[in-house]
Amino acid sequence: MRGAVIHGPRDVRFEDRPAPKIEKPTDAIIRISAACVCGSDLWPYRGANPIAEPTPMGHEYCGVLEEVGKAVTSVTPGQFVIGSFFASDNTCPHCKAGYQTSCQHRELVGGAQAPYLRVPLADGTLVPTREKPSPELVPDLLTLSDVMGTGWFGAEAANVKPGATVVVVGDGAVGLLGILSAREMGAERIIAMSRHPTRQKLARDFGATEIVTERGDEGVARIQELTRGIGADAVLECVGTPEAMQQAIRSTRPGGTVGYVGVPHGVSLDGQALFFAHVRLFGGPAPVRRFLPELIDLVLKGKIHPGKVFDLTLPLEQVAEGYRAMDERRAIKALLRP
Amino acid sequence: MRGAVIHGPRDVRFEDRPAPKIEKPTDAIIRISAACVCGSDLWPYRGANPIAEPTPMGHEYCGVLEEVGKAVTSVTPGQFVIGSFFASDNTCPHCKAGYQTSCQHRELVGGAQAPYLRVPLADGTLVPTREKPSPELVPDLLTLSDVMGTGWFGAEAANVKPGATVVVVGDGAVGLLGILSAREMGAERIIAMSRHPTRQKLARDFGATEIVTERGDEGVARIQELTRGIGADAVLECVGTPEAMQQAIRSTRPGGTVGYVGVPHGVSLDGQALFFAHVRLFGGPAPVRRFLPELIDLVLKGKIHPGKVFDLTLPLEQVAEGYRAMDERRAIKALLRP
Repeated sequence: MRGAVIHGPRDVRFEDRPAPKIEKPTDAIIRISAACVCGSDLWPYRGANPIAEPTPMGHEYCGVLEEVGKAVTSVTPGQFVIGSFFASDNTCPHCKAGYQTSCQHRELVGGAQAPYLRVPLADGTLVPTREKPSPELVPDLLTLSDVMGTGWFGAEAANVKPGATVVVVGDGAVGLLGILSAREMGAERIIAMSRHPTRQKLARDFGATEIVTERGDEGVARIQELTRGIGADAVLECVGTPEAMQQAIRSTRPGGTVGYVGVPHGVSLDGQALFFAHVRLFGGPAPVRRFLPELIDLVLKGKIHPGKVFDLTLPLEQVAEGYRAMDERRAIKALLRP
Repeated sequence: MRGAVIHGPRDVRFEDRPAPKIEKPTDAIIRISAACVCGSDLWPYRGANPIAEPTPMGHEYCGVLEEVGKAVTSVTPGQFVIGSFFASDNTCPHCKAGYQTSCQHRELVGGAQAPYLRVPLADGTLVPTREKPSPELVPDLLTLSDVMGTGWFGAEAANVKPGATVVVVGDGAVGLLGILSAREMGAERIIAMSRHPTRQKLARDFGATEIVTERGDEGVARIQELTRGIGADAVLECVGTPEAMQQAIRSTRPGGTVGYVGVPHGVSLDGQALFFAHVRLFGGPAPVRRFLPELIDLVLKGKIHPGKVFDLTLPLEQVAEGYRAMDERRAIKALLRP
């Protein structure tokens, strides 16, 4: 089969590689219905993460179960399934506590930008839909594999409650879906920090009540102005840069919370500054497995349409253009059709 | 009057200085019933904080109200009062949210190691007891001004819940009272990290169920062993050093919380390591004003005896010996009698 493989910075190739096989009795093979490019795929693409060897790309997936290993009991071939970017057994103490991305037996899922994907720990990782979803819902369901679940975790980690004033730092797909999540959790005000008209529009569609275009000290001043010098109750940091993290911390009221879901790159926090900021900080890889049943339900009932973040759809063989378009911010997020 | 003044590292003098006066109509003057030396007083004493000029010391206090400014309405001379080390108006949005130590008008209280003390924002800062307390309760009540409230905040910030497994890093007075607080909040297991027999004994008196003497990697390994590889639900960091913070983070389960109340000195946190630790972090100057009514009640009902942390009582004029004894860890905490 042919799939996306990264060879170096800005060098993603659609090339022949072996089709995945069942390697362990707990594995499953999925025929991918739709895949996509993640914001975190851009870290190696931009050279921010090292690439030791040619690596199959893609970790967001949904599709039809093709084959399962002998030990798999909870899903059966023919079912439509969605899973997390980290495979988890869903039975260890960390999974039971709801942090499946810290599962004691977690394994990264990789190579989803391809027609077929091997998913380890299928019983713990995959959630089937009751029926095969209609094709127009597939993009919505695909987002639950990572980007929507990550926005949701950002809002949960930031402790968004009904009536809250929320700031979302970052207008990528995760930030935009963080807005949607905050709205679903009952936030009253959602201030989106964005300078891009198309992203601002989607932010408003998803529930943003205000837009702040300033950054840095001016961005902080604007948030303080909008919140009458108090700061926000909950701030979602959806980028992962030092600037975004500082923006988030300085936008939060004392006793408020920063939920950070952008994988930090070069972020270092001064303990004493954080102490006197009086701000709660929580983040990490989003335990999307925990959210899947609830979010699948919201999608199937038509209550949320997270698939709107896909503003570019490409055949899988044009995956490299998907990376380019996202790198150059011509696209928010690229959907790939095998 | 004569009070404690720090002139430089390890140079605390008991010397003449002007008695405090009402400076603003919102001020109050207290006749100190008992004062003490705080662990944080040791930072400048040890040269870790700069001393720009001779500075009156002491910020933990309780005593009898001597005089109030014209605008003060909620407390009257003759009442026994306790207040926080940060004066607060208790009416601003941060105060109303329960974070009085981030009050928009906060002022540090200083110079409590003396017979008299000026407290700004008296209405917002001071809490009177219903009756004048019996003398044996004064040490307990004194701790509520900072050290007990700080231990309490550490446990609250660490999200200690009934049935929780808790680790307390630091066996100073704050750590010991963090143990007491965790017990009051219903923790099932409280693991105290301590290598000092007298402190271990007090830790057990306050509710510690286990003692870990190891530190660093060995300390982390021991905590992991005691928690069957899971980590603790809630960890209190009561020191403020990089080592203690790492100990705390690495002792916490994914999804668990570090409550840090040791003022960080030289602590720097790597964003990516924190992200993958999956640990919630919250700390800052303890809003003891919020806790005062509840903690006063617990003391007056005899339910808690936080004053047990005072293992050295000195007349105020021997304040320098109090610093020395704490610096050399001969004493956990020194009570000073004017």
